[in-house]
Amino acid sequence: MDFAGANILSVEQFERADIERIFSVADSMEPYALRHKVTRVLEGAILGNMFFEPSTRTRISFGCAFNLLGGEVRETTGFQSSAIAKGESLYDTARVLSGYSDVICMRHPGEGSVGEFSAASRVPVINGGDGANEHPSQALLDLYTIQKELRALGRTLNGLRIAMIGDLKYGRTVHSLSHLLCLFNDLHVVLISPDELAMPDEYVTKLRDHGHQVSVTSDLPNNISHVDIVYSTRIQEERFASKQEADSYRGRFRLNQAIYTKYCEPNTVIMHPLPRDSRADANELDNDLNQNPNLAIFRQADNGLLVRMALFAMILDVVEQVDKYARPVNWFHKRS
Amino acid sequence: MDFAGANILSVEQFERADIERIFSVADSMEPYALRHKVTRVLEGAILGNMFFEPSTRTRISFGCAFNLLGGEVRETTGFQSSAIAKGESLYDTARVLSGYSDVICMRHPGEGSVGEFSAASRVPVINGGDGANEHPSQALLDLYTIQKELRALGRTLNGLRIAMIGDLKYGRTVHSLSHLLCLFNDLHVVLISPDELAMPDEYVTKLRDHGHQVSVTSDLPNNISHVDIVYSTRIQEERFASKQEADSYRGRFRLNQAIYTKYCEPNTVIMHPLPRDSRADANELDNDLNQNPNLAIFRQADNGLLVRMALFAMILDVVEQVDKYARPVNWFHKRS
Amino acid sequence: MDFAGANILSVEQFERADIERIFSVADSMEPYALRHKVTRVLEGAILGNMFFEPSTRTRISFGCAFNLLGGEVRETTGFQSSAIAKGESLYDTARVLSGYSDVICMRHPGEGSVGEFSAASRVPVINGGDGANEHPSQALLDLYTIQKELRALGRTLNGLRIAMIGDLKYGRTVHSLSHLLCLFNDLHVVLISPDELAMPDEYVTKLRDHGHQVSVTSDLPNNISHVDIVYSTRIQEERFASKQEADSYRGRFRLNQAIYTKYCEPNTVIMHPLPRDSRADANELDNDLNQNPNLAIFRQADNGLLVRMALFAMILDVVEQVDKYARPVNWFHKRS
Repeated sequence: MDFAGANILSVEQFERADIERIFSVADSMEPYALRHKVTRVLEGAILGNMFFEPSTRTRISFGCAFNLLGGEVRETTGFQSSAIAKGESLYDTARVLSGYSDVICMRHPGEGSVGEFSAASRVPVINGGDGANEHPSQALLDLYTIQKELRALGRTLNGLRIAMIGDLKYGRTVHSLSHLLCLFNDLHVVLISPDELAMPDEYVTKLRDHGHQVSVTSDLPNNISHVDIVYSTRIQEERFASKQEADSYRGRFRLNQAIYTKYCEPNTVIMHPLPRDSRADANELDNDLNQNPNLAIFRQADNGLLVRMALFAMILDVVEQVDKYARPVNWFHKRS
Repeated sequence: MDFAGANILSVEQFERADIERIFSVADSMEPYALRHKVTRVLEGAILGNMFFEPSTRTRISFGCAFNLLGGEVRETTGFQSSAIAKGESLYDTARVLSGYSDVICMRHPGEGSVGEFSAASRVPVINGGDGANEHPSQALLDLYTIQKELRALGRTLNGLRIAMIGDLKYGRTVHSLSHLLCLFNDLHVVLISPDELAMPDEYVTKLRDHGHQVSVTSDLPNNISHVDIVYSTRIQEERFASKQEADSYRGRFRLNQAIYTKYCEPNTVIMHPLPRDSRADANELDNDLNQNPNLAIFRQADNGLLVRMALFAMILDVVEQVDKYARPVNWFHKRS
Repeated sequence: MDFAGANILSVEQFERADIERIFSVADSMEPYALRHKVTRVLEGAILGNMFFEPSTRTRISFGCAFNLLGGEVRETTGFQSSAIAKGESLYDTARVLSGYSDVICMRHPGEGSVGEFSAASRVPVINGGDGANEHPSQALLDLYTIQKELRALGRTLNGLRIAMIGDLKYGRTVHSLSHLLCLFNDLHVVLISPDELAMPDEYVTKLRDHGHQVSVTSDLPNNISHVDIVYSTRIQEERFASKQEADSYRGRFRLNQAIYTKYCEPNTVIMHPLPRDSRADANELDNDLNQNPNLAIFRQADNGLLVRMALFAMILDVVEQVDKYARPVNWFHKRS
């Protein structure tokens, strides 16, 4: 696809070459994110960071990505304060707001809302999450992380062995990731969830249609032994038909250091879309994994910044100019 | 008036020459708003964008206008989170906040609040709306839009024929616009509203005292046939004495493409202060007007950006320097 | 202490030489805050201004301080909208957010929360207030103000005579200020409060252990006659055991111009941590003091900007470069 001026609405719009291009540009953003240098390529450009639904982490990540390229950010957070609440159509909102900025990132609770908005917008729009529908930059940063973690082990995405764990029925991230995985070859995908929260058939079928080996199970320990990646997600109690049903699964999809040591290969990478619930009864990823060097959840967040910088640079067509506007960093920085 | 360091509090502070100066500067801002070039004239300056009452569109418009001139924006949204809620006086708030920025734009629910604030402020203040009282940049962008639309037809503000429709009793925008129209010559003003929501006498009298021809009616179709501009506003049901009264008017002040085609001259321009209520029962401007090239409501929003850029440039006295700090735009832009 | 890359969490981390260094750098920031010149030394740097509890004035002050040094600000306001509310640990929040910016300023309602956050952060963290615990930049700006006001009278902090008035039991600012005062010599400290809201023994003992003369009283008029500074704070009715008790003290810790004229020396400086409650029944500092040139409460706010600029410049190790990136101001400015 031609990225200049394009909307980023869905993972379905990408072909494999597009993904590889995004990841290559994301790699080139690392020196700027790590503060080895600064670029001012987008000095004077404005991002409209329109979060009609709160999401501190995603909003700040998009905003910082734009700042790191030298641009300015104007933003809104929340729904009540918006004209939308007074009956304004997405068409009107888009016509008005798109006159103010060079690119818009939008999160909105309504499925399809960002697509509808983008149709009326006069500037490119990135979907920052439209309800249960799509959140393409999350899927991209997940896949980018997998690729980067594998690369450190001398591997590529082809031949990847991945286990997805938790609520695979409602989890937007695992659906989008499954879609992107179809673009690569010879994967082994292990889907581990309570029966009630199993991956929908369409995604299983799609993965198999692309030649991947897929196994479906509700047993965690015996299925995380031969994978490169475990991708864990939250299970919410209210998803089950009854409390009894929920209790019967309690803790069975949880990962901690003891389980990791006992069942996983030594370099198995642990991922999670974040935020992670760290309360005692959360049953997701225990805090005792924090010292495990294979816990990649914070590298995922760091990679999100790179992927978002790449998307902005590609949409605004400045990839070739980023280094031309580079400068040394003249302040204290120790991040590595 | 001398704009350097001035407060912008009310439309009543302007003489005709002031208006013409603002509009001329606003014209000169267009290449920057359209991204034909970028200016950094206010690089290092800070706008305090203090919205003690939510208004996404106005807040973002002021903020982007300042960014487009190269300045930074710090802002607040909402009332609860402010010291004002803890008993701090506007005097104290102004003394404190005016030490932080170079100029302040303020919206506040209290009538007269922004004037009171500006009296204690050490930097210039723009009224971004103080309750039912004033919102001068809205009136300026309305008049600027009228002038621009007329100019495209080879006309000027003198001799303008305009119909104002809807709630003319409580509508802050039509009152302010009426005031500004008095500065021009030989107008025909048609005031169309339910009897209960008629334009207050003081505005009708003022228009007539300035030699304008004013007609007052509650019949829309037969009174929009010979005007250059129809300026539509929202009618809220709760404004009427009874539901019966409201029902008797239902839909009679609504404009759609069929009514437009049947009654209006071919180039009649349609305006609205926005946001427009696009819900089915809103009875304002129907969505079927969206393809009508004379629907100027989004050009109004675009013009708001230009007028606000002009006000900032004039107040901070950089009008003559804007082009000196200009650069080409090096990123993708397609807006025209 | 070595400021480069340091966290600023508590007043207890400073020695006298550190304080003097901060105040010297703060002095050097004044030309930038007053708009006599502009610096772009932090152009490209990002402040993460994380206010998980609302505080408009402090948030804007930190943000503007960073902007005045040329940096960008990304921020969040409020708690509900944050992942913390979904069970995310401070550790996780810190790991994620510290990948986005060069320095973080954080306010949070939990005591000790900012320290916990900073332990996991990959960038320096400034405590912008963690519940009842600490708010070190407030204590620094208070002491900086005292020093500056005394300097104008040809005096230094050594030998200072200060009265602290109001709720000395729960007031975070007077505790932190007391701690800092211990770093200087030969002070006379008068502690004026209702018995129920007296300064905790630990602070009184600490002051005396450092050789300072401390008197404790609940009588205001006869104890403000021989001091250089009166530092007034709010008394909240709900702090008392009974309404009767509260009523017995009503108005006895209030300062107005008549009391000032009758009891104070001519140059006695009046301070308050702000916001001041200006409602009629507030009993703090009356508005009739606003014309008193010794009312320093707004100079305190201005000094807060200078102290925060100094902290950012020192933490990011650019103090020696600030002037190198200086430029003249090319827009209207009248602040002095």
